[in-house]
Amino acid sequence: MKRILVDVMGGDNAPLELIKGAYAAKCEYDAEYILIGAEAQIREAAKEENIPLEGFSIVHAPTVITMEDDATCVVRTKTDSSMAIGLKMLASGEGDAFVSTGNTGALFTGASLIVRKVSGIRRPAIGAILPMTPPVLLIDSGANISVTPEYLEQFAIMGSAYMKKIHGVASPRVGLLNNGAEDCKGTELQIESYKLLSSNPDINFVGNIEGDRVMRDACDVLVTDGFSGNILLKTMEGMGKLTLTTLKELFMTNAETKFAALLLKKQIDSIKKSFDGTELGGAPMLGISKPVIKAHGSSKAKAFKNAIRQAIAYSDSELTSDITALAKALNERKKAQT
Amino acid sequence: MKRILVDVMGGDNAPLELIKGAYAAKCEYDAEYILIGAEAQIREAAKEENIPLEGFSIVHAPTVITMEDDATCVVRTKTDSSMAIGLKMLASGEGDAFVSTGNTGALFTGASLIVRKVSGIRRPAIGAILPMTPPVLLIDSGANISVTPEYLEQFAIMGSAYMKKIHGVASPRVGLLNNGAEDCKGTELQIESYKLLSSNPDINFVGNIEGDRVMRDACDVLVTDGFSGNILLKTMEGMGKLTLTTLKELFMTNAETKFAALLLKKQIDSIKKSFDGTELGGAPMLGISKPVIKAHGSSKAKAFKNAIRQAIAYSDSELTSDITALAKALNERKKAQT
Repeated sequence: MKRILVDVMGGDNAPLELIKGAYAAKCEYDAEYILIGAEAQIREAAKEENIPLEGFSIVHAPTVITMEDDATCVVRTKTDSSMAIGLKMLASGEGDAFVSTGNTGALFTGASLIVRKVSGIRRPAIGAILPMTPPVLLIDSGANISVTPEYLEQFAIMGSAYMKKIHGVASPRVGLLNNGAEDCKGTELQIESYKLLSSNPDINFVGNIEGDRVMRDACDVLVTDGFSGNILLKTMEGMGKLTLTTLKELFMTNAETKFAALLLKKQIDSIKKSFDGTELGGAPMLGISKPVIKAHGSSKAKAFKNAIRQAIAYSDSELTSDITALAKALNERKKAQT
Repeated sequence: MKRILVDVMGGDNAPLELIKGAYAAKCEYDAEYILIGAEAQIREAAKEENIPLEGFSIVHAPTVITMEDDATCVVRTKTDSSMAIGLKMLASGEGDAFVSTGNTGALFTGASLIVRKVSGIRRPAIGAILPMTPPVLLIDSGANISVTPEYLEQFAIMGSAYMKKIHGVASPRVGLLNNGAEDCKGTELQIESYKLLSSNPDINFVGNIEGDRVMRDACDVLVTDGFSGNILLKTMEGMGKLTLTTLKELFMTNAETKFAALLLKKQIDSIKKSFDGTELGGAPMLGISKPVIKAHGSSKAKAFKNAIRQAIAYSDSELTSDITALAKALNERKKAQT
């Protein structure tokens, strides 16, 4: 049985919603659950909401990393935080996967320095599952602001392995986020990356993808630097929210529109679902030697439960050893070419 | 009376929709209209649709620049195209503004080389009006893939002048597109640009803007490099289209939802309007010494009419001389500082 290390501090709704989410996961998915956080707070929150803590292990962590903390605090000043303790337990083998809603920068830094990266991978990356039909893995979604074509090639390989193993896509189509379809488009980074991606036989490269094609089933893995990835992701989030607000206003206009809203209730709920993305769980940190999942800072119980489900699936899969083998093969081929 | 040079070739719907748009503009806005394109084609299309050509001047252009043409063809191989002829007429004073739906790269190159940039402006840029409430000017939206902090500072000044003159915003708020709010965020480009923008007394700088805040009335002018600007713009377009498709499917589900759609018709039409952006006209080329407006390649008559309206407003305003004066003041201050 997998042992899931659950950081119940950090994020906007800690600890209550995260404990609720962990409890819901425990009811649904067979695993060993280790909650990490301020023990008194955890027990108090659980008591108030009548959440039974039997069957959970609790590991006390005296401090919390906040959104304002510098990313390096996880290995410097806040080594007794829930995040640092969880990552150390994962590194030392006291757990099989770690889930956290905390500070993304700190989690990425901590995962890289404490859990360490997969041998042969130059830079780990954060994948984000875009709530499309079918889902698209955006990699990198914000961790690596400056990248090289070689990083992007590895992101493509890691992203493909993830979509194959976790989402069952047989031969994931990899696209390069760019400002046009032609191979001459973009900055030096995109032009060089295009060459690497299109000449790698292990990558099912489908070419450059413009922002408006991301939503039109153009690829399964969308490769980019963390800066552009963040712009894309946040713009989608913003437009999704704008859509929901606009619809809400539309339906509240008058008695007729309110009646129409009643007729459409089922359909509206499904739109809400498809635009919010919490169904899909969290963002996997790829290239880290053990499974680390970043849940959205605003996660409520359901989203957090889904992130835990994803951590279990990640841990059950052979993804990390796949990525290790793929990185080794890539590096050996590169060596042979030079 | 202003003389508007109208390129009725190029784009997806030339020449018919563009002639219709020009005719609609002529009925509504007082100006002299000069249509540029293949004369026989123009006359035939107008005849078929019973569009009277009285009052229009027609300037024959034997060739057309297509979307596949290289940007430099406008000054090299296709100097007899509607775009090249229109730009040359604008440069020589045979017209006061030029509107085209054609190849963006060629139009930008042609405007820069034939009409020339404003003295003191390092790089002209293409502004795009994002269909928000209130509208946001995105600059650069795709012309300058690689930029410097000094370019972005000038984009901020040109964008502010545009929003002041054309949209009547008293003191336009300028934001820098970035992957976080803090001043340390982004690549070297954003970090250095932040310093320049925040220390320029002529810019009402409101800080870094993340993708999801663009839709939330965070700024009037959004400054960025053309690569990220394109990603933002296309992602918004894609999400807007996805919203409309999703709504359409929702309403077509069954008899009940179809009835609900009838009740909501007025509201749905207004959403369609707010998500499509053709109301707002075209994209101004800022930093060019005379008004050049790029209308969307997919423009139909109404969108093209609005782009013509915008060209008239641009030409009526003192925008170009404002930008010239602002560039001069900026460069003099920089000189004094060194």
